[in-house]
Order: sequence, then C-alpha cells, then structure tokens
Amino acid sequence: MNIDQANQSAVEKMISAKPMLKGVATARDVIPGMKDNLILHAGPPLTWARMSGPVRGAMIGAMLFEGLARSEAEATSMAENGEVEFDSCHHHGAVGPMAGATSASMKVYVVENIEHGNKAYSNLNEGYGKVLRYGAYSDDVLKKLRWMNDVLGVALADALAQTDGIDMRALIAEALQMGDEGHNRNKAGSLIYLKTIAPLIVKVVKDDSVAAEVLKFIGDNMLSVLNPVMASCKAMTDAAHGVEGSTIVTTMARNGTDFGIRVSGLGEKQWFTAPAQIPIGKFFPGFTQDDANPDVGDSAITETAGIGGFAMAAAPAIVTFVGGTPEDTMKATLEMYQITTVENANFQIPALNFRGTPTGIDIRKVVETRIAPRINTGIAHKNAGVGQVGAGLVRPPMKIFEDALTEYSKKYKS
Amino acid sequence: MNIDQANQSAVEKMISAKPMLKGVATARDVIPGMKDNLILHAGPPLTWARMSGPVRGAMIGAMLFEGLARSEAEATSMAENGEVEFDSCHHHGAVGPMAGATSASMKVYVVENIEHGNKAYSNLNEGYGKVLRYGAYSDDVLKKLRWMNDVLGVALADALAQTDGIDMRALIAEALQMGDEGHNRNKAGSLIYLKTIAPLIVKVVKDDSVAAEVLKFIGDNMLSVLNPVMASCKAMTDAAHGVEGSTIVTTMARNGTDFGIRVSGLGEKQWFTAPAQIPIGKFFPGFTQDDANPDVGDSAITETAGIGGFAMAAAPAIVTFVGGTPEDTMKATLEMYQITTVENANFQIPALNFRGTPTGIDIRKVVETRIAPRINTGIAHKNAGVGQVGAGLVRPPMKIFEDALTEYSKKYKS
Repeated sequence: MNIDQANQSAVEKMISAKPMLKGVATARDVIPGMKDNLILHAGPPLTWARMSGPVRGAMIGAMLFEGLARSEAEATSMAENGEVEFDSCHHHGAVGPMAGATSASMKVYVVENIEHGNKAYSNLNEGYGKVLRYGAYSDDVLKKLRWMNDVLGVALADALAQTDGIDMRALIAEALQMGDEGHNRNKAGSLIYLKTIAPLIVKVVKDDSVAAEVLKFIGDNMLSVLNPVMASCKAMTDAAHGVEGSTIVTTMARNGTDFGIRVSGLGEKQWFTAPAQIPIGKFFPGFTQDDANPDVGDSAITETAGIGGFAMAAAPAIVTFVGGTPEDTMKATLEMYQITTVENANFQIPALNFRGTPTGIDIRKVVETRIAPRINTGIAHKNAGVGQVGAGLVRPPMKIFEDALTEYSKKYKS
Repeated sequence: MNIDQANQSAVEKMISAKPMLKGVATARDVIPGMKDNLILHAGPPLTWARMSGPVRGAMIGAMLFEGLARSEAEATSMAENGEVEFDSCHHHGAVGPMAGATSASMKVYVVENIEHGNKAYSNLNEGYGKVLRYGAYSDDVLKKLRWMNDVLGVALADALAQTDGIDMRALIAEALQMGDEGHNRNKAGSLIYLKTIAPLIVKVVKDDSVAAEVLKFIGDNMLSVLNPVMASCKAMTDAAHGVEGSTIVTTMARNGTDFGIRVSGLGEKQWFTAPAQIPIGKFFPGFTQDDANPDVGDSAITETAGIGGFAMAAAPAIVTFVGGTPEDTMKATLEMYQITTVENANFQIPALNFRGTPTGIDIRKVVETRIAPRINTGIAHKNAGVGQVGAGLVRPPMKIFEDALTEYSKKYKS
C-alpha cells in the first residue's frame, strides 16, 4: 500500500467536496441519532464528571432550553444521575463552536456536500457576549436562544427553502480574499452571507419589523457565517475519512478537557486524545490568562480543512483580536505547509501571491517535524456562566499525533 | 509664512473631517447652482467640442434622461448650439465616477462633514456593464437609471431619513481592514453599507418584492458604496482647501480629455491641467489597450484623500482586476509616502503593520521626487455607448504639478 497515494486520494476528496448550505431544520428531524434526552457537545466524547465549567454550563443551559430541567440544580442532578445523555457532535455528523451544545429542539444548519452526498450540521451562531456556547445560561441567554429558534431560525429556513443552496466553497474562497481566515475572523463571510440571504428573507418574513430585526442580527454578528462554514468544513473532512491507509487528519476537536483527533485510515469513532492546552492570546478588559479554560470547541474543523489558523496570512487584521503582528500571520501559514499534503487552489491567499491554503494534515509530518497544527480560537472563562474572555492561538498536544501514528503502524503493520 | 505649517494645517483638516452620509435627495434641490439645463461632468471644466466619446455619450444620456432631448441627434445638436450648459461637478460640491454625468432630476447622495460643516454630493452607482458613466445611453441604460431614481433612490432616501447618518470614515477604515482600497475595490465597503442600511430599507419599503429587489441591487453591486465614499473624500479634501500658503493637492480629477488638479493655497476654481494619460491595465475579453479612452472620472478624489491607489497595500486581491502582483500593491503604497505629508491613523493598512495611509499630496514633493501620484481606475472605451473595457493604473502628467508650483511661487513670491 502506498501511503502517499492514499493521502492524495483522501485530500482530493476533501478539496473536491462541494458543500452547499441547503437549509435550516430542527435537530431532532435531521441529525442522525438525535434524541430528546441527548445533548451533543464539542470535541471527543466526554462524561459529565470530566467536563470543565463552561461545557457544564452549556449542557445545563441546553437542558433548561429543552425543558428537561427547570433549574440549574435539577439539571446538575440529572446529569450526575445519568438521566440525560451526552455525546460528541462529531458522532452525529454535527459540529458546534466552543461547548457545541446542540439539543433536539434546536434549529441547525444543514450542509450537503453535493459532490459526495454526505451531510453535516451545525447550530446557529449567537454572536458575542454572554452566550450558551461559552457556558452562560441566564434567562437572557435562553430568551435569545428562543428568539433564534422561533424567529431567526424560521426565517432562515424559509429563506433557504427558496434556493438550491448557498455555495459555501465559493463563499469561503471570497471571504479569504477579504481579510477573513474563516475561523476567528468571519467578518467578510458573514456579510457575503447577509447579502445572499437578505433578499430572500425579505420575501418570506411578512412582518417588516421582524425582517428588519433578523437582518440586523445577521449583519451585526461578525460570526453569523461561522457555523455554516464549520458544517461545510465538516462535510469536506468527512468526505476524506475512511480512505484505507491514509494518515490524513480528518478531525481536530476539543471538549474543554481533551483535545482529540481522528485519522482517515483509522476508525470512525477512534479518537486520539490528550489534555487540551490553554490558549495564549489577548484578553478582554478585566480578564487575564488565569481566567482561561482549556481549549474547547469543534471549530478546529476549519483548520482541519485548511482554513482558520492555516489561512492566517489571509487575515493580517486578525492580530488586533488574537495578538501578534501581521508578519506572524504570514509565518503561521508558511509553517503549516510543512505538515500538510497539498495547496488547495480553491482557497487562495492574496498576500502569498494567491498560493492555495495548506491542506490535509499528515500525522507523519507532524511527528517528524515536531510542528503541531496552529489553531485560532476564542477563549472561554473557566467557570460556567461567564462567557468569552479573549481570543488567541493554541496547538494540540504532540502526543495525540504520536499515538495515532503508533496505532496506524499497528493496524497497517508498516 | 511657513509652508510646512500651512500644509500641516490643511492636512489636519482633511484628516479630522468627519463625513457622514446624511441622505439622498434630488440634485436640483440640494446641489448648489444646479439648474434644469445644466449637466455636470467629471474633471476640470470642459467644452462639448473637446469632450471624448464616453463623456459625450454620458452627456447625451443625461439629456435624454432629463427629457431635454428626445434623440441622440437632438441632444448633440443642442450641445453644439449651446442650448444646454456643462460644468465641472467639482464647481458644485459634487463628484461622479467616470463621466460623472449628474443632472437636475437625478437622486444624489448628500454627505456632510460634521466636523467643519461642508457638504458634498455624488450620484448613485449603476454597477458594472453598460452604464451611463461609461458613456452608454441605450434604452436599457435609461430604464435602469429611472428605476434607480424612482425606486432605489427613494428607498435609500427614506431609509437614511431614519438615521443620524452613516459614519463614512468608520466605514472606510473597516473596509481597508477587509481588502478594499476604496476606489477600484469596494467589495467590503459595499457590504458594510448593505448591512447598515438593509434593516432600515425593510422598514420603509412597503412592498416586499421591491425591498428584495433593492437589497439585491445594493448587495450584488460591488461598487454600491463607491459614490458615497467619493463624496466623503470630497468633503474631506474640500475641508483642506483654501489654507493660505499650503501646497497640498485638494483635487485630482479627469474629464477624459484633461487631467486637472487644484491646490489648497491657490484659487478655488484654479485648475492646472494637461492632457489625460491612457491607463495601463487588464482588459475584459475582446478589448485591448487600443480601445482605452484617456483617463476619466472624479474618483481620483479617493487618492487625493489618501485611499484608493495610495492604500493599495490594503487590497492585494485587487491585482486580479488591475494587473500586477500583490508585491506591487505594497510598493505602490510605500512609494506614495514619499510625496505625502502625513500618515492618516484613521485609515490603517494591516499588511503594513497598521501604518496609516499616505495622505496629503505635496506638489513640492511630487516635483522634487518626480514621483506622480498613482491612481487606480476603471478604463472606458474610447467610443460613446460601449462602456467599461478594463481596469488599471494611471498617473497624472507631471506638468500640472510643475505648473501649480510655478503659480504658487508667483502668488507667494517664495
């Protein structure tokens, strides 16, 4: 078996994938294996006992949102007694930023890779501030979630139903020409999304003041498009999974306790995990590095697909948010070419003379170069209910790539 | 008299200007000196006899639009016989891209510099393709102009009436962080504009399908915000005009025949002109350099205010449109620091480590360094009615800076 050929095949699938944002639907109706007493979380599978503060907070919030519990105490007790189930978003074709809390009643984006037929899902983005994904679950947070589900989600569903889908590959490509990297900076992508969907929303939402509110919410939230982008990256990377003999990473995800990866030529639920690191970054006024929770969120699916931290050179302005200098953004992308397999011509970086983004992390190269992938990330407060405290950069522990390579060697006796 | 002090004073006014997009109104109601049989054009003043093809085409189109003439032949005859007047937009506080055709019935943007109280005006942007500003005047062109006046213009007017104005300085600053340079690339700025105005439009336009059409037109036209940006630059540079002893350029404008500049310490209607050059650039399929008209349009007001070609380093992706490499965009901006007075901290370029854009062209420095300003521009076909054939770069003739300096020396006996 030729590993390089297997990797080319896997990466070819990732790159040729054509993710289309097809619709918005209720999670229980579309997400495989979704159940009323199941709450999905980001990252590799995790028990309640090992969950960090913000992830517990988000799970509590989701239980309150679903009406599974009526108070924090009741939710905690149910979780401790196993009366509610938790599972990894990734085991259900889904991804969610930060805690990734996704429950049965929530509206989710439906992305279909029309090249290979697989689908992926992601919840709706709440914007900045006190939000469920950072572990906040106050009445205000739940009220906003209900508005998002009943008003925003319905508007998006009705609007998208008027289309054949939004070409997310084209959207990401254009956003990278406009200073986004697609993970921590989605200003341009969110506006392209607004531009595409605004005329449709106006047609399907009958109440003018509601339509105005929906357009304002999408337009003012610079992360509006993050979740469809993540689902698109999930659809791309899932297409690359399961190629016999491939050493390409098809998932990187964090649950606030562990960092986990999956590899194309290894099992679908075979995670390689180690304790998640604490991101280094810029903190909002009043917070410091000491407040930071270990790395959390499925959003590293963007880096897995070759954007985000891998496309930092496209987004020099991001340093005002994550720290460092514009020169660092160039270095970050250039470094990632050393651990990846191809340059994705669909996603070009103007400042690198339109070089394609570094795509297809090879666990062999990571172990050999000792260069771990770079991930742009938001930083959650370590306590439940506080929210985001900053943004920065993080790398996965080297050990998980070594473990994956060991397992690969066993399986393929190479 | 200290020339440097005078220049600092002029540039300080340009930079501290705070242009707010206050509204949309009918030209005859707001533009000083506007009359029913007056058509404004871009650049320094120009007689019909000396007008190039596309500018004549645009003047004919404006006469047809106003009902001053019923045919091309009648319009031409009226122009030849002096039955219609032409004047420079700049003599009426206005600016228009390319031919700049602005007539009494047209809706125009109203920008107010709330720091110094002066106002500036610009017509609405028609998008790409066959358009009046490139000298096209077919029925389709006129039909679109009527829709823009009666539907789009009314919607924008009603929407802006709901606000205290849109902060254009902030909009330009943000667009420069998103890969725009503000002249030939206004993708991000146009989407920020859409995001700001969309919720307002939904509230004031009662017919949903009309609201959808308006949002689609604004969102799909990557030049939507060019005209308000130009009026904002005009409001900034006008604020810097008339400072005794200053050698700062306060206008650069082309009428398709001549390139003209005005200087802060010289007269308000005192133009220094020489034959306009032909831009060098990339041409649309089927067209070549031979099809290009000499340089035309008031849009060089953006470079006069320190953006556009001066901010090219912010917009590496623009080379797909104007030619050259991303490295050239850095060189372009770096070169402009040699002929300008200050760096405008309001407009920062991420790729240059957030250095402010080079601002305040000093005629002394241009003459001394033999470096003429760089201007990004669209390229018109030399014949009336054809339209845009490409985009590229151009410089003004050196002679006009020498003439201005000679005149300055006479006036100030320096």
